[in-house]
Formats: sequence, C-alpha cells, structure tokens
Amino acid sequence: MSEVKNPALYGDGLVKIDWVKRFMPVCGELEKAYAKEKPFQGLTIAMCIHLEAKTARLALLLRDAGAKVVVTGSNPLSTQDDVAAALEHEGLEVFAWRGETSEEYERNLQCLLSFNPDLILDDGFDLTTMLVERFPQKVGKVIGVTEETTTGLIRARNMAKAGKLPFPVMAVNDARVKHLFDNRYGTGESSVYSFMHNTNLLIGGKTFVVAGFGFVGRGIAEKLRGLGAKVIVTEVDPVKALEAHAEGFTVMSMDEACQVGEVFITATGNTGVIREEHFLKMKDGAILGNAGHFNVEVDVEALEKLAQDTYEARPNIMGYRMPNGKVLFLIAEGRLMNLAAGQGHPAEIMDLSFAAQFLSLKYLMDSKGTLQPQVLLVPAEIDEEVARIKLGSLGIKIDQLSRSQEEYLNRW
Amino acid sequence: MSEVKNPALYGDGLVKIDWVKRFMPVCGELEKAYAKEKPFQGLTIAMCIHLEAKTARLALLLRDAGAKVVVTGSNPLSTQDDVAAALEHEGLEVFAWRGETSEEYERNLQCLLSFNPDLILDDGFDLTTMLVERFPQKVGKVIGVTEETTTGLIRARNMAKAGKLPFPVMAVNDARVKHLFDNRYGTGESSVYSFMHNTNLLIGGKTFVVAGFGFVGRGIAEKLRGLGAKVIVTEVDPVKALEAHAEGFTVMSMDEACQVGEVFITATGNTGVIREEHFLKMKDGAILGNAGHFNVEVDVEALEKLAQDTYEARPNIMGYRMPNGKVLFLIAEGRLMNLAAGQGHPAEIMDLSFAAQFLSLKYLMDSKGTLQPQVLLVPAEIDEEVARIKLGSLGIKIDQLSRSQEEYLNRW
Amino acid sequence: MSEVKNPALYGDGLVKIDWVKRFMPVCGELEKAYAKEKPFQGLTIAMCIHLEAKTARLALLLRDAGAKVVVTGSNPLSTQDDVAAALEHEGLEVFAWRGETSEEYERNLQCLLSFNPDLILDDGFDLTTMLVERFPQKVGKVIGVTEETTTGLIRARNMAKAGKLPFPVMAVNDARVKHLFDNRYGTGESSVYSFMHNTNLLIGGKTFVVAGFGFVGRGIAEKLRGLGAKVIVTEVDPVKALEAHAEGFTVMSMDEACQVGEVFITATGNTGVIREEHFLKMKDGAILGNAGHFNVEVDVEALEKLAQDTYEARPNIMGYRMPNGKVLFLIAEGRLMNLAAGQGHPAEIMDLSFAAQFLSLKYLMDSKGTLQPQVLLVPAEIDEEVARIKLGSLGIKIDQLSRSQEEYLNRW
Amino acid sequence: MSEVKNPALYGDGLVKIDWVKRFMPVCGELEKAYAKEKPFQGLTIAMCIHLEAKTARLALLLRDAGAKVVVTGSNPLSTQDDVAAALEHEGLEVFAWRGETSEEYERNLQCLLSFNPDLILDDGFDLTTMLVERFPQKVGKVIGVTEETTTGLIRARNMAKAGKLPFPVMAVNDARVKHLFDNRYGTGESSVYSFMHNTNLLIGGKTFVVAGFGFVGRGIAEKLRGLGAKVIVTEVDPVKALEAHAEGFTVMSMDEACQVGEVFITATGNTGVIREEHFLKMKDGAILGNAGHFNVEVDVEALEKLAQDTYEARPNIMGYRMPNGKVLFLIAEGRLMNLAAGQGHPAEIMDLSFAAQFLSLKYLMDSKGTLQPQVLLVPAEIDEEVARIKLGSLGIKIDQLSRSQEEYLNRW
Repeated sequence: MSEVKNPALYGDGLVKIDWVKRFMPVCGELEKAYAKEKPFQGLTIAMCIHLEAKTARLALLLRDAGAKVVVTGSNPLSTQDDVAAALEHEGLEVFAWRGETSEEYERNLQCLLSFNPDLILDDGFDLTTMLVERFPQKVGKVIGVTEETTTGLIRARNMAKAGKLPFPVMAVNDARVKHLFDNRYGTGESSVYSFMHNTNLLIGGKTFVVAGFGFVGRGIAEKLRGLGAKVIVTEVDPVKALEAHAEGFTVMSMDEACQVGEVFITATGNTGVIREEHFLKMKDGAILGNAGHFNVEVDVEALEKLAQDTYEARPNIMGYRMPNGKVLFLIAEGRLMNLAAGQGHPAEIMDLSFAAQFLSLKYLMDSKGTLQPQVLLVPAEIDEEVARIKLGSLGIKIDQLSRSQEEYLNRW
Repeated sequence: MSEVKNPALYGDGLVKIDWVKRFMPVCGELEKAYAKEKPFQGLTIAMCIHLEAKTARLALLLRDAGAKVVVTGSNPLSTQDDVAAALEHEGLEVFAWRGETSEEYERNLQCLLSFNPDLILDDGFDLTTMLVERFPQKVGKVIGVTEETTTGLIRARNMAKAGKLPFPVMAVNDARVKHLFDNRYGTGESSVYSFMHNTNLLIGGKTFVVAGFGFVGRGIAEKLRGLGAKVIVTEVDPVKALEAHAEGFTVMSMDEACQVGEVFITATGNTGVIREEHFLKMKDGAILGNAGHFNVEVDVEALEKLAQDTYEARPNIMGYRMPNGKVLFLIAEGRLMNLAAGQGHPAEIMDLSFAAQFLSLKYLMDSKGTLQPQVLLVPAEIDEEVARIKLGSLGIKIDQLSRSQEEYLNRW
Repeated sequence: MSEVKNPALYGDGLVKIDWVKRFMPVCGELEKAYAKEKPFQGLTIAMCIHLEAKTARLALLLRDAGAKVVVTGSNPLSTQDDVAAALEHEGLEVFAWRGETSEEYERNLQCLLSFNPDLILDDGFDLTTMLVERFPQKVGKVIGVTEETTTGLIRARNMAKAGKLPFPVMAVNDARVKHLFDNRYGTGESSVYSFMHNTNLLIGGKTFVVAGFGFVGRGIAEKLRGLGAKVIVTEVDPVKALEAHAEGFTVMSMDEACQVGEVFITATGNTGVIREEHFLKMKDGAILGNAGHFNVEVDVEALEKLAQDTYEARPNIMGYRMPNGKVLFLIAEGRLMNLAAGQGHPAEIMDLSFAAQFLSLKYLMDSKGTLQPQVLLVPAEIDEEVARIKLGSLGIKIDQLSRSQEEYLNRW
Repeated sequence: MSEVKNPALYGDGLVKIDWVKRFMPVCGELEKAYAKEKPFQGLTIAMCIHLEAKTARLALLLRDAGAKVVVTGSNPLSTQDDVAAALEHEGLEVFAWRGETSEEYERNLQCLLSFNPDLILDDGFDLTTMLVERFPQKVGKVIGVTEETTTGLIRARNMAKAGKLPFPVMAVNDARVKHLFDNRYGTGESSVYSFMHNTNLLIGGKTFVVAGFGFVGRGIAEKLRGLGAKVIVTEVDPVKALEAHAEGFTVMSMDEACQVGEVFITATGNTGVIREEHFLKMKDGAILGNAGHFNVEVDVEALEKLAQDTYEARPNIMGYRMPNGKVLFLIAEGRLMNLAAGQGHPAEIMDLSFAAQFLSLKYLMDSKGTLQPQVLLVPAEIDEEVARIKLGSLGIKIDQLSRSQEEYLNRW
C-alpha cells in the first residue's frame, strides 16, 4: 500500500542504510535489547521525518521493537527515493518521494493518519498539527508525540499555551545527548566540511568570521581553529564575547569584522546579522555561509538588490557583483550550509538523538495515562542511558559514585 | 587603630598592589567612574577576605568610592603582612597578620563589627555568622552582604532556610563573570602553573589523569592538552564522559586510569576520588595533586596509613613509599594546589570577580529596603556591565541588537 | 589546431578558472608584473600537466607573460574537458581529453614536441623522456625543464647520473614554498576532507592511526587532532616517534595500533605498511585510506586475496569481508585519497608551487647558457620572492635585517 | 681534595638529585647497562658544567660507568652548593661554589686539569681552551671532548679552522635528540613557566608577540597558543613567516606588533630585535622577556637610557618609565628567561641530551685513534639509541623496517 517513486531502487537504499547502521551503535544496542521483547507490539507509530538512511535506521529499529511503522517525509526535497524503496521493501508503509507537490505532501500526511497511530514521531509538528486541527476524532487514540526540532517545539508550546494540546509531547530537541552533541560537534564538523566541499579552499591561515558564540558558533570556531584558521567571533552578549576572548579568539563588531574577514559563517539564531552595510565594506571575493536554522541570518534579499550581476561560481555558490565592483560569494543561498550544501550530520551524532527518540517513545508508552498534555523534558535517565550505551559501545568504562560519595554530595 | 604585624613593610605592599592594579582594568574603570561621585559616602564596609594584593586593590577601590573600609583576613595563613601594612598606610582600618591564633582571628572579626558596618563583604560567611549569632543588636543597620565562596553561600542558604537570615546576601560566586572565568581559565592555568612550579617536569607527552569534567576539570584538561599532554578524563556522569570523549580526551574509570597515569589532578568536588585501591596500583613515581576546593578528593589519610615511609622530595611535595616499594608524590598535602602551592588566580580573573563584588555592594545599597532577606542572584545587568567594561579596556567592540533583531527574537 | 573533446564546453571551464584565479594571488601578482614586459616573448613552452583549473591558470599566466603555450595532460584520467576547451578558447594549443588511450596520450606528447619548445614544464618526466630518447634533434633548442614531482625528479636524476641529461632541470618539487606547504597543509587538509566526504562520519572522538610522521603524516595528524580526533602515530624512526610522543600523540607499533584504530591513513612513502597480519586483527568496520604518493602502502593485493566477499559500500569505498567475518573498508582503492577521492590541493597551495614554476622557467631563460645539465635546486631568491609576494597579497609586513643585525649574524 | 662551600649540605643535594633521577630514565637505563661493565674504568673525565641536580646525575652516571670524575661549574652563579656537596659526598672531586670570583673560577678549571683528564665534557669550551692554550703538555693524553653549547661549538670550530684543535670534539648540541627536543619543548614550556612564575598573570586571551619562528620561537608560540593566547609572530625570513601564517599565527612587522602586543618574547638569535623605536610605541604595562641565548635581543642599554625612572616591580621584573609616561617591564634583565628567572629545562629534556653526552664520550673512547681532530657530528646511531631507550622506558613499541621495505626504499 506504500507509495514510493521506484520500488526497484531498494538495493541502493539498503546499502546506504547498512553503512550508517555500522556507525550507529546505540541504535544497534537498543535493537539487541528490544528485538525479542518487542515492547511496541500492537502499536502503530507514524513517523514524519527527513527520509534518508539515518532516519530509515530509526524506522527499522522501531519496527524491530514490535511497532507497525508508517512513514512519510517531512520535507519534499530531503526524501531519498532509494531509501524510501528500501523501507517499503522491508515491509514498512511508506508514502514519500523526492519532489512531492504541496498537495502530495499533505495527502501523504493524511495517509499516515489513516492508520490511526498510537504514537507520533514528528519533525516540525506538521503531522501533529494536521491531526489536532483536522482529525479530532483520531486524537483520543494518540498516547503522545516526540518532536526533535526547535521549530516544532515552539509550535507545540504555543498549542499547549492555547490549551489545545491533547497529549504529551516529549522535547527530544532539549535532551542533553541531543543538543550538547549535534550543535557543537555535528554542526561544527559538517559546516567545516561544507566549506571545504563547496570551495576547495585552504582553511589554514584563512581569516574566518563566526557570528555567534553559542553552542553552534563555538563548535564551528573551535573546529576551524583546529585546522589552522584565524577566527574572529562576533557577539551581542558581552559575557559570551569575553569567553571567546579568553579562549584566544579575536572578538570584533561585525562592522569591523566585515572589513577583514575572508569567510563568514553565521550561527546566531537571529535575523539580518550580515546585511547591506556590511556587504558594501567586504573584501573582494569574501565568502558567506550560514549554519543557523533559518536562512535569515545573511540578508539575502538585500544582497540580491545590491547586486549588479550574479552568476554561479561553483555548484552551490552564487557570485554577487556589488556596485563597488567587488564580488561576494554566497553558499547555498544562505540556507543551513551543512544540510543544503553538505551531507548533514554524521551518523554518530544522529545515533544519539535517535536513541533518545526511541526511549522517549517507549517512555510515553510506559507512562500512558500518567503524563500531562504538556511539552515534557526528556527524563535525565534517558540521557544517561543513551550516553552509557554509547560509552559501552566504545569499550569505555566510567566511575560509579560510592555510597559514601553520594552521602558526601547530599550533605551540601 | 589598626593592628598589623609591621607597619614599616608598607612599601613592599604598595609595590605588590601597584603590580596587580595594572592588570585589573575593570576595577580601574570603576575607580574612574565612582571616585568623584563617591556613592558609598557615609557607609562603613567590613571586609573579611584573604588579605593579599588583589583583595587590597578591591578595598582601596571601595575606599575611593567613598566608603569607610575596615578589613580583616579570612584565613590566618593567607594574610600578607606587607599588604596589610600598605592598607593601614592608606588609611584603612586593618586587623590582620599572618599566623593569627584562632582567638586572635575571632577577636579581629569582633573588631570589625565594632565599627557597625552598613555592608559586609564576606568570604566563607564567618563574619556574617558571628554578627547574626552574637551581635543581634547590630543586625538592623546592615543593608546586606556579598559572599563569593561556594561554602559561604551554602551557609547563607542554610541560614535563610532556617528563617534566620536578616538581610539579603548576593551570591557573587554564581555570577557569570565569576564562575565562567575563574573555574575554567583561572584554575586551569594556575593549576598547570602549580604543577610546573613544584615539579620542574615536562608536560608535553606526559600522561595526566584529570578527575572530573566540570568547569574546573575541563579547564585543566584543555590547558594541559594545549601544552602537549595526553589527558585521561574520569567522570561519574555518562553524558559529561561522552562530551570528554567527543572532544578527543581519553575516558576511563579511575581503576584503569590509575595504572597508566603519570600525574593525577582531582577536580570533582567529591570525596575519596583517589583512594587506597588506586594508590596500590599506581606506577612508581606517580604525582598527585588536587584542584578541588576541599582536600578530600585524594584520600590523604589512607595514603599516610599505607606509607612505609615519607620524605619531602621537593618543597611542597611529599613522597610516600608504598608497601609495594613504589613511591607516590603528593603536592601540597592534597590541598588546592593552585593556592596552597602556587600563586592563586591571576589578577585578570580576580578583576572580574571583584568588579562584580563592587557592583553588588552598590546594588544592595541602591536597593536598600526593597530586597528580601534571601540569597539573591547577581542581576544579569551587573554581569553584562562587568564584561562590557572589560571588553572596553581591551579596545574590543561588540554588536548591539537592532530593534528589528530584538523583535525577531521576541517573536519566539 | 587543438584537439579537445568538446570546444563548446569552454564557458564552464572559464568559470572554473575564474574561481581558482581569485585564490591564487601570487600568480595574479606575477601576471601584473610581467604582462606588459612579456619576458617569454618569442619562446614556446610545452606543458605536460594534470589539466584542470589550477594548472590552466598557470598556462594562462605563461601566455600572458609572452610565451606561446602548448599543453597536454599528464594523466588521461585527470583531464577536465571543459577546462581544456577553455584553454583552447583562450588561444592556447591544447591536446588532451579525459579518457585518452595510451596511444592517444603518446600521440599528444608528440604533438607538443612538434612545436619545438624552448622550455618544458613537466609532471612525471614523460614528455622530457620522450624528447631525449626519441627526438634528439629537438634537444638542442631546449633551454631547460621544470619538474614538480618526486617521481619525475628521480627519473631526471637517473638520467643525469647516466650522463644523458642534455639540459638543466629545476627541482621545483624541492622548493621550500612547495614542499613545506603542500605536504603539511595541502595534503593535511585535503586528506581530512576526503575522509569526511567519502564517509560522512564524525572525526571528534574517533581513533585515527596515522602511519608515518614525516611532513605529510604530521600534517594529517595535526589537522585530525585539531578536529578532536584521538591520533595514534606509527613510525620506524625512533627520533620521529619520540617527537610525535612529545607533541602528545600516542605512539604504537602497527601491530598494536591495528587492534584499536577505527580509521587508518598511511603516509610513509613505503610499501606494505598495512598488510595481511594487520587486516586480520582489525576491528569490524575499520576504514583504510592512503595519503602517500603510491598505492602500495596498504597492501591491497593481500586484502583482495583475503576477502571472502567485496561490495561497494559508498561511492569510492569498497567493503572487504574478512575470513573472520569482519568487514574492512578501503577508500579509493588505496590510491592517494585526496586526489583519487577528493578535490586535490586547495588553490592557495598550488599558487605557491606554480609561482615557483613560473619563476624557475624565467630563471632558466635568464640563465641560458650558464647552467650545467643537472638537476638544480630552485634558488633561495625564488622561494623568498614567492613568499614575499604571497605575504604582500595578504597585507602582511615582515621585518628586514638591519645592517648591524646582518653584521652580528655574520660574526658567527 | 674537593672544594665546596659546605659539605654538610650534601643531604639536600642528594634529595634534589634523587628527584630528577626518577625523571631521567634514559640515564637510568644506561646506568643499568654499564654499571657492571664499567667501560670507562681507568679513565679520568673532567666535567665543566652548570652544577645542579640534572648535571650531577650525569656525573654520577659516568662515575658508575667506571670513570674517575672531576667536576667544576661552568658559571659561578649557577652552582648549587648543596648539589656540589652531594657529589663530594659521593666521592667525586668537586671544585665549585656559588659566587666564585673570576680568579677562583679559573683556579678551579686548573684544578681539574691537574687530574690529567682523558676525556673532557665541556660547556662553553672554557676548560678546553685553557687546556690547549696554557697546558699543551697535557693535550696528548686527551682522547676527545664533548661540547653541548652553540657558543662552545663556535669556539671549537674556530680553533679547528685555525688548525689548533688537537683532538676530536663531538657536537652534542647538534644531535637530533638534543636540538629537536630542548628548543621546541624544553625552552617552549620553560619560557611559558617563567612568564607565569614572574608575573602571576593570565595567558588566555592575552596578546603575545614572539620574535622569531625558528625552533625556539615556534615552540613558545605553540605552547602559548595551547593555553589560549593570541600569538603574533615576527620574522625576517618570508618563508618562515608564511609558515607561521599558514599555521594560524598572526604575522606582523615588529613596528606594528609593538603597538598591539601585551607581552614580547624574543627568540631570534639576533641582536637589537626590540629597540628604542619600539619601546616608544609600546602600550603602557607591556612586558618584555627573552628566550634566546644572549641578552642582546632586547636592547636593554637603550631601554635604560630612555628610562626616566626604574623600579623593581616584582622579583626579577624591572619597571622602566618611558619619557611618554608609560612603564615597560623587563623580565630578568633581558637574559634567557627560562634560566635566569625560571628553573631551566625539565629533567626529561636533559635526560636525552645527557644520554647523548654519555654515548658520545663512549664513542670517543671506543674510536680512540681513528677520529680526526675536528668537530664531529654525533653519529645517527647514538640519536637512535637514545630515542629507542626513551621509548622503551615509556613502554612504547615502534615498527621495524622489513627486508622488503628496506629494499623498496633503496630502490629509489
């Protein structure tokens, strides 16, 4: 009953899944732990996700743990047709193909809901919103939802505030094993990769400007410095700026930095961080990219207005000729460069997030009837279990608090 | 009316103060800002502190801002007599000398209270406790207290919980400009210095075991690695352990680490982190030090019991011959090595903390009558003002949020 | 008279050349300096090179400096047809296309010689060898040759030793601005890129084994560590091994390292560095790549013999199932990974080498009749001029020795 | 027959020697290897050295290997009287005390020669020069000399050039295990220590200017950066300057750097690197130190002439008030800061050098009669043996070339 572009592509999809599976040991351990027990037996899980190899691995894990799994893509452009075919081949119900129209995307969401899911794994909250707004009769069966994105959680919290959230939503995005790792290490490395991939330029000795010294900016700044770059940090928070300074980065205002930087990467979560006044002061050949979630950090609209002329300088890189004759280069239209012009997060990073997803779904099921219809933090035990399994897969042992140590700590 | 060891030493003390003053620009800017205005005019501030050059600089700043300042040491062994003499020479009332007896220490606290202070700057909460418990008649005049130590704040919070705290206490220890900087950078660098100073050994290539990957442990681990050491991290929290792993450190249990480490530095805040079972497995010549607040992290008692023989191997380093014939070396009796066998935090670090102290005292004064008798967090504005002044002293400009950016952020 | 695959592709080729041109400022400065003067006027230069954008930029520089430039590829698989078309479009004589047969390759070399070159820029010494062995009548006109590869220089030195070298050959490969930069920084970064690109895996926390601690191995080890990897170094030279240790790397024999490594990169210049005995001890999923010039460092033949089964796990990655059931992955068949499965050296690196090429050709011309028919080192002045131009392009000023400083140094 | 200040101090000296002995494992292995065999039996070795714990350990090693050892200090200020007493207590002939006059120093050299040494271990070449110039009758017995300093080797080479060197001199200074390690790692770490020790200031975030990017400068720059400093490098060699740039350091001329640096450390081997024109442009409070061999890199004479006023700001730090009112601070009078205001090289570094000394003395003895009266390089075998023993002491195994690998390498 699935709908995929070409079921015959399943072989390629399986090879892709096989590769990432090897580097997702926590999911592997969960599979070992739950494949016999099958805790999700009898339940239907609807997944709305970026459909590629790593998410497919999560879908298969849920299937092996007993669930009936129905899947659609969360973005028409991120679906990989061979992976979709592989999931269909494995017996899942899949409704997704690359290049769906908006109507098709919506119809696919409806298809999923037609299976009357018990649990929802959402990415952006589209599926849940459709359920609540248009299929109230199906709401009662739903035990809960896990949501991994910042955006999705904002929507969930707004729904809760409005008194309209009918079931608990687990904020997987806020789990320590998620945000401590994917921002600093995942986005850090994959943004550096994206720069290298799209430019084939040298990092050593080059002057990079990293806007923002939160987890993402810090991760990028540290990785670039590790490769020999000179890194300038811009910030609006003086305490973070002082941290960057104390760690040896050069701190400037963007007004100064724009005049000396060779490459700019934004990671602020804010809008208009690099804008008209900066474009006009930049060096000829400056390169701009964005590692923040939304494509508003570099003011692309202003860039386009200013440009006398544009041309594709390399795949994924557009050149904009400024009125002063200088050319600025923009990677991936200012969209999240590690995804839009890269390969996304490494498998090892997603392994941690997806293990937290899996255990959060299990927690929802185990706690059925006891949780409030709110956005809930992932319990510390889940973070610790994920980390412990990961450490175990690496053969790493850590210390345990002795009774006397616990007592000592509790004394305070 | 002061009591110091030898007033004639004041010249040496002034030279010491002059040195640190140059590297405490935030205090310098505050002096410029408030020396004319003299906001503390008419108030008496009692300071109970480690009396050395950096704290003396804070005392003089308060004096220049109009306060009558009365001073005693918070620890009989940390008082520097030349600095005490310098403060007396500058016209402050000082009651402190190195090597005070307990009785003398207590009498000096009483002397301070005899001045009927309006504000108290405490370090460990001894002075405040004496005031509340033994001089209730003087409590009414006190506007509030600032307290910089973890221990002092625990005592303050216990007093508040018991309903016995009569005035507000500012938790300067928890300010961002304090704990983000002194733990990672201050303790990090000064612990490395202490190791170098006491051993004259090479760090490059050496295997260090750092117990704990909190701010202090992380700081030490990063600085050691920056010098070429191989760093093993031990932890009890699996998520922190995984962070250490992801940043390239080797993570082990202490049971494994104790067999391969050449130097061990504890930074856990816990007790008995390195103990009998570990001592017996260590390599001959292993060196142990502690960077945590209390001298309980290395089980010195157990070490002494085990030892067949002890000897002073270098100043501040004791050798313990184990029953297996191996010798272990302990730096500074397991006490905080950067203080007990070093020179303490660099002036630049204390500058931030003391600026937060100054502004917290001013905040207490300005808010007189409006604050609850509780332990209060330092307002974000103070953190930001300190950081902003520090950045300014470095000639660093940072960005300001535009109105549209603020709106964008508030939309979420 | 050129022969290229498709002249219509020239537009794409020009865009590629335009991109690298911007990041090759030394060549740009040389163009400015010599485009008017045209020092090579009247001379024909034959170039046998990997024909892609960066080498095309060098060809155009020589053209602009007055030379008639005739070009062929040095490897049938490295020719980019759009770049070849662009050079033809620019008026150069080009004889090269991707996928030439051996016969075609040879015929193209002959075509070049039919132009009776005055200077030869060779890459591997094929063109020069053909000239000397088969066209002795053309030898007399040749002023000299520049050769950039190690292999080519070995062939040149053998020819000189045999008394058969008829003209001087400049060893551009040995110039400081070449080998100090392309090995450590160029190969270092591009090998890291190749790993990221082909695996999409995380580097932070992963255990890499780098075989060899020469310039290439050191470069790779440092870049990987800069990204958070744990790096094990293997060596045969005890002094280099001790350097690696002192810089904080873990040093092991390959016999030990093969059991703990997750990724292996060879950079020894030797043969059989990773071989049967190691394959059988490796972890399941270990990944192997080579950054040395020849594909003999990983014993691929042995790997294939051992394999029960092979499959393409990702593009450019072959999986080999060992008799013990484990799977090992090999990047790019054990060939130089940054070229065979990457994008080669960044433009900034080639800029330095090519400037040294240009100035070496000019030196040959200017010294015509005065140089011995030997392999000659690039004069220190050329190294210094290239470096000085590069520093100038970055706006960097350095110090000059004063007369008294020169005297001081000469006193020794 | 020894002459030391106070024989009763021997206990303190023995404790100092015992400490360094533990961290000099190569000397320890040589002791194990040769204490029974006693290869130097019957020979007298005259040592002229900085007499402190590490050199004492070498003297005892030679004694244990059978030699009669006679010792004097190479500098009247570096002799530690307790260590001298310890050597006397151990039965060596010692003629050295702290604070010798020039006459006493010379008389002590003569005392050594009165023992008619077979081998000389010299440090600066004073002892050898006296022997050759004033005691020609004793020259015949001398098998050879080892010399560890650059200065001493210059004097030896001048003597050889003048045809006056009567015996071979081993250039221990040029051994790989010496210069690769003590310059980068030894001077690097100990200069950083000296800065920390003398200033008690923070390194993280501070702007350091390192003059010179040879081995010493590079070592210091890397260690400082590892601690979070911002490091500016000045150079006169454009290729080295470009290397520094490519590794992420900021490169400037001293004229620019002097205006932005907070701390300056010279390591050029040249004279007048920081001079009047720079002093006048420096920031108030700038700190200057030197890590080069001679105290000519900072032009102290000019500094003193400029100064309106000087004062001791901290032990080992002199403040100079410039005509513009700013104060500059100079560490240790511009002398080698890690020695003059530090604790010298770590024991692990000296262990390598001294093992090379020991084996060079043995090589001279074993090759008696076959070596030319020249300055000779330490044979590669000695470098390798020292490195191999050190690796062994660390439990590190490295690879051996197989026969087929050797053949492969020789093929080239």
